[in-house]
Amino acid sequence: MSTSPELISEHGCFGGLQRFYKHDSQAIGLPMKFSIFLPPQAAIEKAGGKVPALVYLAGLTCNEETFMTKGGAQGLAAELGIALIAPDTSPRGAGVPGESESWDFGVGAGFYLDASEAPWSKSYRMESYITTELLPLIGKTLPIDSARIGISGHSMGGHGALTLALRHPALFKSVSAFAPICAPSQCPWGHKAFTGYLGADKAAWAAHDASALMGGMATAPFPGGILIDQGLADKFLAEQLHPHLFEAACAGSGQPLTLRRHAGYDHGYYFISSFMADHLQHHARQLQA
Amino acid sequence: MSTSPELISEHGCFGGLQRFYKHDSQAIGLPMKFSIFLPPQAAIEKAGGKVPALVYLAGLTCNEETFMTKGGAQGLAAELGIALIAPDTSPRGAGVPGESESWDFGVGAGFYLDASEAPWSKSYRMESYITTELLPLIGKTLPIDSARIGISGHSMGGHGALTLALRHPALFKSVSAFAPICAPSQCPWGHKAFTGYLGADKAAWAAHDASALMGGMATAPFPGGILIDQGLADKFLAEQLHPHLFEAACAGSGQPLTLRRHAGYDHGYYFISSFMADHLQHHARQLQA
Repeated sequence: MSTSPELISEHGCFGGLQRFYKHDSQAIGLPMKFSIFLPPQAAIEKAGGKVPALVYLAGLTCNEETFMTKGGAQGLAAELGIALIAPDTSPRGAGVPGESESWDFGVGAGFYLDASEAPWSKSYRMESYITTELLPLIGKTLPIDSARIGISGHSMGGHGALTLALRHPALFKSVSAFAPICAPSQCPWGHKAFTGYLGADKAAWAAHDASALMGGMATAPFPGGILIDQGLADKFLAEQLHPHLFEAACAGSGQPLTLRRHAGYDHGYYFISSFMADHLQHHARQLQA
Repeated sequence: MSTSPELISEHGCFGGLQRFYKHDSQAIGLPMKFSIFLPPQAAIEKAGGKVPALVYLAGLTCNEETFMTKGGAQGLAAELGIALIAPDTSPRGAGVPGESESWDFGVGAGFYLDASEAPWSKSYRMESYITTELLPLIGKTLPIDSARIGISGHSMGGHGALTLALRHPALFKSVSAFAPICAPSQCPWGHKAFTGYLGADKAAWAAHDASALMGGMATAPFPGGILIDQGLADKFLAEQLHPHLFEAACAGSGQPLTLRRHAGYDHGYYFISSFMADHLQHHARQLQA
């Protein structure tokens, strides 16, 4: 059992509450932080009602604060009555040798999977942490409806959103992503992370590769559609992201996909915030249906 | 004459352009950075039309990036057709002994005035920099209408917005502030900054104190009204901000003031972003009248 989360700070925000929490994670074996925005509807519904929530997974080098300070999502989330949940991007303080030497592997770069390779396998278990510990904990201790959870994310977190949604379709009712790593088995970031966390046997990689997962689907796992936004001035697009491979996989399995390619937009939060409202509306339609 | 600003970076943002510039400042004697958001209307109007702009002055420890990453203003500014301009909060690299020892004086804490005391007086000249150099430079090199400029800011930057507007009413058509330092002559932040920059003679302080300046006005300098938002959970409110003194001064000189006190909101950007739309609308009404 997880212990109850400890409230680190609380800030009034668009009529709701922006909170930061810390808790001792059993899945990780270390303290973990997360942030949550509770819309005004959550406070109103203290008597027993619960609000739907969107989980947002951040990218390389980010943490549980990035989305809440830079994403610009709280205003519309308050209007729509949707909570926002942002976990950290990796364990902190695991003490694995070399874990802080790279910006794209180790600390700040957990890739939202459970490592099978020692010594990473002890603490780098972000998939189990989010799906079996954090979300149940939030459902139990905060006014969040666990049956109405959507997931989104950016870059490494877009990979996380797509793969966690495809691996746990019963947990997530809606999915979207900003500039996701769509085929990690076929890009340098993914090669480095999967080799380190999962080992050299590429057969194990496919289970954490959004395009490979979608390619193996006989029917559309998200008939309501998946939304992806991608900037065409994104310096990582050609080498790391490969949205065309996910697009082809969706076409093959009949999965409705809205993949929008935007001239002039890069990989950062000026891009993300520009299209945040469309993502919130995408999730709201499916979470409140 | 100032040299043309050098474009450091440009990011697509809500259909417009988020830019960061560097230029050699004559007023400061050092390179200075600033950021500007150009709404889509500015691009459309390349043929000669210009858009109005809102100058935003950030608070202690911040820089030219803070407002653009955390303020959440670009979306509505794009809709309204208003540019956003954010200068840095002080000179950088002036080399004044001790300038980096305090978070509330020196680097990151220029207080938007011209220092009269040596050695600060050589470079710490933020008032001249903004009013006689930066805004003319922007008006000359970017599609901004210098006759339609509003000013806002937060905390130290709220002090800057109110005092620069009152000292240069011909430059600014509209003014607002978030949790401003309203009476720096009567609070610890102001005592420290004014003693350091202006000397011990308090007679000189009144010219840079928003409440004292407003108290000396025979008629309302901004008949369209001033908007101030203040959180009641702001830990600096009682000791440092004194909005009631500015409120009394406005009442005395017939200056229309909307001062809103918000329960549950603190001093940070979750507060600022929550009320940003109201400030943009306030400025748009007066800049586009």
